[in-house]
Amino acid sequence: MKLTQQQIETFHTEGWLFLPELFNPEEVDLLRREALAIYDQHRPEVWREKTGAPRTAFAAHTYNEAFRLLGAHPRLIGPVEQIFGEQLYMHQYKINAKSAFTGEVWQWHQDYGTWKRDDGMPEPRAMNISVFLDEVMPINGPLLLVPCSQTAGDLKASHDIATTSYPLWTLDDETVTRLVKEGGIVAPTGKPGGVLMFHGNLVHGSAGNITPYPRKIVYLTLNAVSNHIRTPTRPEFIAHQDFAPIRPVDDDALLRLARSPRQAAE
Amino acid sequence: MKLTQQQIETFHTEGWLFLPELFNPEEVDLLRREALAIYDQHRPEVWREKTGAPRTAFAAHTYNEAFRLLGAHPRLIGPVEQIFGEQLYMHQYKINAKSAFTGEVWQWHQDYGTWKRDDGMPEPRAMNISVFLDEVMPINGPLLLVPCSQTAGDLKASHDIATTSYPLWTLDDETVTRLVKEGGIVAPTGKPGGVLMFHGNLVHGSAGNITPYPRKIVYLTLNAVSNHIRTPTRPEFIAHQDFAPIRPVDDDALLRLARSPRQAAE
Repeated sequence: MKLTQQQIETFHTEGWLFLPELFNPEEVDLLRREALAIYDQHRPEVWREKTGAPRTAFAAHTYNEAFRLLGAHPRLIGPVEQIFGEQLYMHQYKINAKSAFTGEVWQWHQDYGTWKRDDGMPEPRAMNISVFLDEVMPINGPLLLVPCSQTAGDLKASHDIATTSYPLWTLDDETVTRLVKEGGIVAPTGKPGGVLMFHGNLVHGSAGNITPYPRKIVYLTLNAVSNHIRTPTRPEFIAHQDFAPIRPVDDDALLRLARSPRQAAE
Repeated sequence: MKLTQQQIETFHTEGWLFLPELFNPEEVDLLRREALAIYDQHRPEVWREKTGAPRTAFAAHTYNEAFRLLGAHPRLIGPVEQIFGEQLYMHQYKINAKSAFTGEVWQWHQDYGTWKRDDGMPEPRAMNISVFLDEVMPINGPLLLVPCSQTAGDLKASHDIATTSYPLWTLDDETVTRLVKEGGIVAPTGKPGGVLMFHGNLVHGSAGNITPYPRKIVYLTLNAVSNHIRTPTRPEFIAHQDFAPIRPVDDDALLRLARSPRQAAE
């Protein structure tokens, strides 16, 4: 798995890149089942909407074998190492639920805003990766991206602790309007197994989900090792402090786990 | 403006019909300007979101000339008379804002549920018509329809007075899941001037709008005169009690108003 020169250029211009069906149905089925099992657990890493439905599960790579393999998967690590030209560690790892009927909004924001303010990350040299566990459709709360908005740098933001159960540094309407006038909005959609990569300064958000179709995505943040965070304020399970470079697993590691007797027996 | 036999059959099977660009840009521009002027007014017919942004303006055909002409427009009255085979009166008239950034959700519901319970309407022989004043896109909170769900009849509903600022008889998740499994979900989108008609028992809803693109639609309910409401409980400006048949205006009436000196001077 290597990005082409054209893909790399697209990423640098547009700030995002979509790789359809990078993981196959067997791999994704395993991850989807494991995600549901994690949401059923009551542990501090699992955060819920105001309704009680799961919103996000943190750090699953530290307590679940399938998500550990995904977090070190060469199909994700390879392309991001290519772009940053150095080794990576896992800064953050979330499984976002956007549950059927009750999935709430994520207001417009840049992720690097939070990494800088809350974690002391020096530069926006960390990559957001979202791995689709369900089909992402226009109607079930897809990620909305503002192309090219990463070039606007680190924008003024305010700390929204009211709209949802998850605190977020969000952008004001005037800024979003201006950037959308320039870049428009894209909503990459596709089958389970698709992978969306985007720049830490790319402006994005997502609307609520009122449909019966859940929209789970795994949301990994791979940071360049030299760019490790300096002044963490958030819990270790939200902003990791293990800066050891990730050593990729075999390309078929996840598939082998999906086919292992233990999984088959379940 | 006459529906073809195929369009009528599609309506009876699917429960909805979309007529793209039924009104031209000059007509729609006038309506859009007038809608904004109405939203600026503080009057009991204008309801707001929790944020203060406009949510819906009732009964604009009774106090605004452009909306009076739209409510008696032959391109709307003709097709609905064709389907019901009798004359019509205006049961309800709303301009729904779904404002940029703050437009809230409309939970899954059938409109006839409310007309029956709150207004005493005998049969679902009233037609919902939505006229797009802005471009309706997949990302700015389009109406989501469950095709064929009108055949399920009048479904059990509960009165939701908590989710938004507008009370609504809403359906439970199990019912919506079952109907969507059978009929799927469609989200008709298109340019300003498009018209969507759908059956009073068609299950529909819409997600919030976090984009900078407002999504105003006029939402008319034309009722067969013989099906007039029997036991109104809501204010006259919400559920009208003038059962006199609508006499259609000329097809170019709205266009003439748009081109009139008074409008041009504004």
